[in-house]
Amino acid sequence: MPNPIDFRPVILAGGSGTRFWPRSRRARAKQVLALDGERTMIQQTVERLNPLGGLTKTLVITNELLAEAIGTQLSEVPTQQIIQEPAARNTAPACGLAAFLVERENPDAVLGVFPSDHVIGDEPRFLKTLEKAIALAAAGENIVVLGIAPTRPETGYGYIETGAALAGSEAVQVRRFTEKPDQQNAEKFVAAGNFYWNSGMFLWSARTLTHAIREHLPKTAPLLEKIAAAYGTPQFAETFRALYPQCENISIDYAVLEPRSAKGEDASHLYCFPAEFGWNDLGSWAALYEHKRDARSSADAEGNIFEASHLQTIDAQNNYVYSPKKFVALVGVKDLVVVDTGDALLVVDRAHSQDVGKLVKELGKNGHNELV
Amino acid sequence: MPNPIDFRPVILAGGSGTRFWPRSRRARAKQVLALDGERTMIQQTVERLNPLGGLTKTLVITNELLAEAIGTQLSEVPTQQIIQEPAARNTAPACGLAAFLVERENPDAVLGVFPSDHVIGDEPRFLKTLEKAIALAAAGENIVVLGIAPTRPETGYGYIETGAALAGSEAVQVRRFTEKPDQQNAEKFVAAGNFYWNSGMFLWSARTLTHAIREHLPKTAPLLEKIAAAYGTPQFAETFRALYPQCENISIDYAVLEPRSAKGEDASHLYCFPAEFGWNDLGSWAALYEHKRDARSSADAEGNIFEASHLQTIDAQNNYVYSPKKFVALVGVKDLVVVDTGDALLVVDRAHSQDVGKLVKELGKNGHNELV
Repeated sequence: MPNPIDFRPVILAGGSGTRFWPRSRRARAKQVLALDGERTMIQQTVERLNPLGGLTKTLVITNELLAEAIGTQLSEVPTQQIIQEPAARNTAPACGLAAFLVERENPDAVLGVFPSDHVIGDEPRFLKTLEKAIALAAAGENIVVLGIAPTRPETGYGYIETGAALAGSEAVQVRRFTEKPDQQNAEKFVAAGNFYWNSGMFLWSARTLTHAIREHLPKTAPLLEKIAAAYGTPQFAETFRALYPQCENISIDYAVLEPRSAKGEDASHLYCFPAEFGWNDLGSWAALYEHKRDARSSADAEGNIFEASHLQTIDAQNNYVYSPKKFVALVGVKDLVVVDTGDALLVVDRAHSQDVGKLVKELGKNGHNELV
Repeated sequence: MPNPIDFRPVILAGGSGTRFWPRSRRARAKQVLALDGERTMIQQTVERLNPLGGLTKTLVITNELLAEAIGTQLSEVPTQQIIQEPAARNTAPACGLAAFLVERENPDAVLGVFPSDHVIGDEPRFLKTLEKAIALAAAGENIVVLGIAPTRPETGYGYIETGAALAGSEAVQVRRFTEKPDQQNAEKFVAAGNFYWNSGMFLWSARTLTHAIREHLPKTAPLLEKIAAAYGTPQFAETFRALYPQCENISIDYAVLEPRSAKGEDASHLYCFPAEFGWNDLGSWAALYEHKRDARSSADAEGNIFEASHLQTIDAQNNYVYSPKKFVALVGVKDLVVVDTGDALLVVDRAHSQDVGKLVKELGKNGHNELV
């Protein structure tokens, strides 16, 4: 049975993704890499939503550096729906622009905002959850966020504290959004049982979101409206380039969700839809290693995972090797990430893989622009 | 003042040197690599001896795989003095052949047998020591071995136990040669004070060595004599190829030095010349790292030594990186050896670098002949 709701996937694909250096570069960010399987992250993201959205209804918001790669990878998405931001302005203006664009066609349409670089393990379950979340978002002025049941006291994510259950639904009311916690608080959150990871996946009608942008970003809203009005006209590129950089540089979480949650559980119309579909944001080489290990993809008996032409090990455990063209030998090492891209080689202890972003900043500072 | 003794350097250069894989390969063994400085190990070995021996008096004994590289590197050594063994027979037949060859020209000439792949830190001191050792070897039927004062309880070397001092000389009598000791014995040897590492550098007259070969290898000696008699004739290659493989496959230590030492200190005419000239046999990547670190060559403040086009580190200590063509980044790792040769990449914990030879054996077994 087709979904009667006009669902519009909005894919946020502007991130630079330095944490997968040296595979990721400015013009080859994480979302356009095939980190997990044959298809790239953004291809998987768009295809996963296809049964509910449809490629012709998909909006992709990216930047000028990545637009070419994304256009090639998403050849079935109409070119004009791949929108190239003339400047990075974080997620609030991107989501807002999508809402103003869709509102002109159908204010009741439900926008689903999705990062372009996350892994979903159980796609049928994901679609089932999403279908219910879309229905909830279509009803009135609800804002729905997909929350991930936490499996560890992760300090790298924002958490959603939830309150009362919504009668007749799996959804729960959002009490508040918290920023990334310290270790002690993260442990408390996981123990409490009513905290979820903020997945960055949101659902709301075009009308609800444009209202929210007008309410919470009153200076930015009219700029986005003007850009949306120029869409499809010869003036679009010029208008976009002139006005978008004037928008506030702020995330949708800070701009809309947090102030909205401050209104109180009942008045905010903010709901969390608890989701368990094998989510992983692949935030680092360590996360990729763990995902592949848990998925038991190409791990040897000693926990080494290799995407390499040939590998030989002696007394080596729990390493991740990416080296599509070169023979790699590991001797007496464990918990390493080894990535060879032909022009650069990274060797990082897995526990330090969060520092790879820092490394890329250093490279830029030291004039190695060809490598960033 | 020129040395009145007819000194003949004999360079043993047949080793395969798998422990520096992937830089070393069958046809690119350690001795033909520039591991330490601009010149290769064998170039440094030959040039170091030049003030005492002279290039035209130098004999190099190698194998067919390495002969071309060695011929190119030692362009001033006459081609016929670079002898290609048709089969590997360890050091006794190689030393013996050199002795029979030299004996035909001058039985009183002193042969100095030298490995082709060792590092000598203090060359003037080396030459001074050697000059005295040559003089001792020239006197009668003495056999002189250069012993290195041990600086640690190394279990990878043979030791020389010494006895009484030779009157009027720095030399001491050899009591016995010991095989590679276990840790406990190595510690005892170092504590005892009269034990030296066997450097593999020996001195003896041509006459003394041919006598010793005849005495201790009675089957091999006539074969070597026939080969030496054919040297310089059109039959040499054929004779060498026919007879040399019939020689006993044994080291000079086992064949001559150990049985000779069993005759007792006074009867053996075996002397150890204690040497302190910064000797290192560079037996592994770890040894190379330590040598370079101690020589303070290209180490950064955190003890990383890099022979790489570009290197960037974050929180990385005491690593060795060889990557002449590729950018390398190290994050959160220590005590690693990282070697990139374009066709192969090795990552080994320094404490495991003795296992690299084992790795190369595995590669051969697994059909990676292009890499060994």
